[in-house]
Amino acid sequence: MKMGKFITLEGGEGAGKTTNLEFVVEYLNSKGKRVMVSREPGGTPIGEDIRSLLLKKSKQPISKDTELLLIFAARAQHIMEKILPGLEAGQWVVCDRYIDASYAYQGGGRNINLNKIKLLVNNFTNKLEPDLTLLLDVPVDIGMSRVRERSVPDRFESEKMSFFHSVRNSYLSQAATFPNRIKKIDGSQSLALIQSEITQYLDILLVS
Amino acid sequence: MKMGKFITLEGGEGAGKTTNLEFVVEYLNSKGKRVMVSREPGGTPIGEDIRSLLLKKSKQPISKDTELLLIFAARAQHIMEKILPGLEAGQWVVCDRYIDASYAYQGGGRNINLNKIKLLVNNFTNKLEPDLTLLLDVPVDIGMSRVRERSVPDRFESEKMSFFHSVRNSYLSQAATFPNRIKKIDGSQSLALIQSEITQYLDILLVS
Repeated sequence: MKMGKFITLEGGEGAGKTTNLEFVVEYLNSKGKRVMVSREPGGTPIGEDIRSLLLKKSKQPISKDTELLLIFAARAQHIMEKILPGLEAGQWVVCDRYIDASYAYQGGGRNINLNKIKLLVNNFTNKLEPDLTLLLDVPVDIGMSRVRERSVPDRFESEKMSFFHSVRNSYLSQAATFPNRIKKIDGSQSLALIQSEITQYLDILLVS
Repeated sequence: MKMGKFITLEGGEGAGKTTNLEFVVEYLNSKGKRVMVSREPGGTPIGEDIRSLLLKKSKQPISKDTELLLIFAARAQHIMEKILPGLEAGQWVVCDRYIDASYAYQGGGRNINLNKIKLLVNNFTNKLEPDLTLLLDVPVDIGMSRVRERSVPDRFESEKMSFFHSVRNSYLSQAATFPNRIKKIDGSQSLALIQSEITQYLDILLVS
């Protein structure tokens, strides 16, 4: 059985991940691929319980290290219980956020030393890297104005603007460091242009 | 302000931690010490939420790595929010389980490589070591027969006997490696003898 491919979508708040994730799935289905959709933090029953802990606002702030470890706890389960078995069964796995989000949010946003994050990546992720990462990039003010129209902000969405600028800068610097894997897409373009770019990247993966 | 001391109680299931923890607190109070009592996993609101995830039995087993990371997530919060502030305010902190339990349960019991645990200890615990660890040691069959009389077993208490033998052996090997900090006490003796030994170790700490 040929392994499936692993595709992740990344980007700040309001970057358009949800809409474009649906597009990715439809496109892959139209090419005859079986697709499993998932998200982080979460993806498994215990992962979703952990996600609830992470998103809820509490009187006592969650420490940075606790946040980071909770995310990797959910991720370890996600990889073992869902992503790896899916890929091994030949499914394509499309995931809303993955390791890059930890570098961006906990590294960039929370200012945790990147080596500490790398150490968790190296020891608790089965060294599973995406085959393709689509980074939807929008200026912070555009992203945040989209988020505000949506719903009550969660614990992350309630952060200060400087937090989101750091998150964006981290994402951009990762995309510059790993240009073969991470494809930066201007998320402020029309949906037609965004999805035409996405199609091109998926087509390369489909024949590889 | 003089820092308080940090005392941990360790031991397998049914070793007598609860009873003897109460004794430690009473004894320290009788010597005029302000004492904060806590436990792991748990100790803080989010830590207790994490504890619930760890103890509940679920259809899909929690992966070893997820269990380990959840325990260190709770621990990081515990140290930052409770243990360190307590010690810095001059309180003595007495805690039911701490890092040694991770080596015993996740290292010994679950057979996780000890270097992986050490890496979390070195990076996510502020290098906070107990001043004294009381290891209550009982043969596994004695401990388990005490537990069975108590209540419905949780996820850990439902493990196989070989798991508890590995936990005990790990605890004993740590006590042999760190004899200055970890004091092994025969938990199958009479309570009077156990508490006389505990008193001796506390008296040394009280004058140091």
